[in-house]
Amino acid sequence: MIALGVDSGSRCTGYGVVEGRGPAHRALAFGAVRLSPDLPHSERLALIGERLRALIGEFHPEVLALEGVFMAENAQSALKLGQVRGAVMLTAAQVGVPVLEISPAEVKAAVTGYGRAEKVQVQKMVQAILGLPKPPTPLDASDALALAICALARSRLGSVGAPR
Amino acid sequence: MIALGVDSGSRCTGYGVVEGRGPAHRALAFGAVRLSPDLPHSERLALIGERLRALIGEFHPEVLALEGVFMAENAQSALKLGQVRGAVMLTAAQVGVPVLEISPAEVKAAVTGYGRAEKVQVQKMVQAILGLPKPPTPLDASDALALAICALARSRLGSVGAPR
Repeated sequence: MIALGVDSGSRCTGYGVVEGRGPAHRALAFGAVRLSPDLPHSERLALIGERLRALIGEFHPEVLALEGVFMAENAQSALKLGQVRGAVMLTAAQVGVPVLEISPAEVKAAVTGYGRAEKVQVQKMVQAILGLPKPPTPLDASDALALAICALARSRLGSVGAPR
Repeated sequence: MIALGVDSGSRCTGYGVVEGRGPAHRALAFGAVRLSPDLPHSERLALIGERLRALIGEFHPEVLALEGVFMAENAQSALKLGQVRGAVMLTAAQVGVPVLEISPAEVKAAVTGYGRAEKVQVQKMVQAILGLPKPPTPLDASDALALAICALARSRLGSVGAPR
């Protein structure tokens, strides 16, 4: 099974594609879409949508995992983050890939065994789980890989599906 | 010139298509997409995207007008509203229609002459400007028509373009 994790951000959106076969995991691709604040919002969202469509076309993930519960610093940053999430969700729906929302605590617990782990701990565990030669960067890509790993773990428990 | 106004909301998203020829305005279509909270978020966004694509395919608007500056009650509602806005913006970008963000005060001033007008006053003026037999409903559709009227007014001043 293959999962695509997406760590949405208004300036940088990380992605990670992970294949899981039983306990073995392999990173197929990871990276981040960095977006210039000089671009109009709609063009930024189009760039994210295009990258995700390309990844989905290449790797055919069975699920797209997004960070679920979320606490924004303020309404303005929540609005901007929401816009990116909306573009990610719409892209997934357009190509028929179900979206799985996973809480940050669940992602951290699935990867490190501790729901309040730091991002750098997550990064080191993601490196170990995927057998990468060095910690995956940027941190947005590492977080996206962790989301994908968590989605694969959930699928083994038979609970993958579109969230309500 | 034809403008499509969209009043984004997580439960109900209004739309209005207006054709302007000099001072004359005509409503080509208006209504709202009501979304069941039982649907997964990504499916709700897909329904909004499909309706907008159908409207754009039928009426070929030269601009899509969205409410710009925005104050949310809280971060959670801002996140949900942002998701809808992201889906609207991505759809516009995918079909090559520029997005114009217009502040609520500008919309109200353009339609009623008063930047702090109530929604019902906006609705009555929209009815008068478009020569409709009765006030356009729901209010989300009326607000969307007001956005389209304002976008047409701006275009006469030569300032239509993608916002930065």
